[in-house]
Amino acid sequence: MKLENTRSLGAEIVTYDRFTESREEIARALAASLGAVLVPSFDDPHVIAGQGTAGLEIMEQASELGVRIRQVLVCCGGGGLVAGIATAIKATDPSIDIHSVEPEAFDDTARSLRSGRRETVDRGARSICDALLAPSPGELTFPINQRLLTSGLVVRDDQVRDAMRFAFGSMKLVIEPGGAVALAAILGGIAPSCEEASVIVVSGANVDPQLYADILHSS
Amino acid sequence: MKLENTRSLGAEIVTYDRFTESREEIARALAASLGAVLVPSFDDPHVIAGQGTAGLEIMEQASELGVRIRQVLVCCGGGGLVAGIATAIKATDPSIDIHSVEPEAFDDTARSLRSGRRETVDRGARSICDALLAPSPGELTFPINQRLLTSGLVVRDDQVRDAMRFAFGSMKLVIEPGGAVALAAILGGIAPSCEEASVIVVSGANVDPQLYADILHSS
Repeated sequence: MKLENTRSLGAEIVTYDRFTESREEIARALAASLGAVLVPSFDDPHVIAGQGTAGLEIMEQASELGVRIRQVLVCCGGGGLVAGIATAIKATDPSIDIHSVEPEAFDDTARSLRSGRRETVDRGARSICDALLAPSPGELTFPINQRLLTSGLVVRDDQVRDAMRFAFGSMKLVIEPGGAVALAAILGGIAPSCEEASVIVVSGANVDPQLYADILHSS
Repeated sequence: MKLENTRSLGAEIVTYDRFTESREEIARALAASLGAVLVPSFDDPHVIAGQGTAGLEIMEQASELGVRIRQVLVCCGGGGLVAGIATAIKATDPSIDIHSVEPEAFDDTARSLRSGRRETVDRGARSICDALLAPSPGELTFPINQRLLTSGLVVRDDQVRDAMRFAFGSMKLVIEPGGAVALAAILGGIAPSCEEASVIVVSGANVDPQLYADILHSS
């Protein structure tokens, strides 16, 4: 689905082996040979700032609705989206808790927040959350998340599947696995319970139709 | 899915045979024995008026966006939603065309608009669009639609399946078959082509997970 959608926008696609090659190195070499500008997926101040606008929107909408937010849960791969959102929200209201949410096998941010240094995941780690497979927190994103995040939560793939089925049946939204982890953390009782509002960031819906059908079938 | 969702709201569910019994008669008898108020699914002035608020929203949003609307396509079973929307839109801008869209085997409104009287569908008619299986236009809805609609369009079930897959892959929305007919009319080239905006009403997402999975699998 992602290959197809990207190709349909006119892109030339270069595939790589996630487990033995570095996409950052491949991209740098390509950019150098083509004279192109590299736009990183998360470890870049402008990318983080751009993703932070989601945090501004959350605060604006909560204010319009008169809702008091207790915590915000954000899916986390390299940590750019949660770093941007945390920056925007903490600047407005430092009392709001921000939690990253990762797949169980890719809990590098959760462990890094606890240990205080950038941890990496096992080579053999696997998850259906193909948007969240970054092997370690970013150089730029981690210091931000270390300063602003309350904790790093993790969810199992079966909780992600449950969340996707819930979104299908009750929210009528198609969500990809990586986009469903924050919802999974709430539904699975992983997130702290609270009296005031929890905000869940649901982001990404590039899910393969066959995988999606299989997840629905197994309900 | 519909039975389950309705039951979870606390309802007692009475099933019937759509092809040999009349739900209106069953409901009238139940309402009489229980002293309850009957809320018809479409043939009622208040229900039509309520559904018409979707038309008001369309005009408001088009005005905010500065969009000039040429035509509005609305899914049609008994014709309440399209009657309400047409009433609201024509009151604001009589030059906008309103088209009902029905499944091929349940084209009673399309045929009635052509013949000038309330036609019925065959007893043996079948469609995956389970929200649009009313056997004839309503007593109240038809005179409204006769006065306000430009034409009645029809789509095949395979075009509805294509539209549901398009909504999944490109709009990231779960749509039930009956809610996808207007989108199917645009994607299938059934609707008149025009320079100005076409508005498509997508309504309803109570689709059985197994059916939805099967539709995705057959892509």
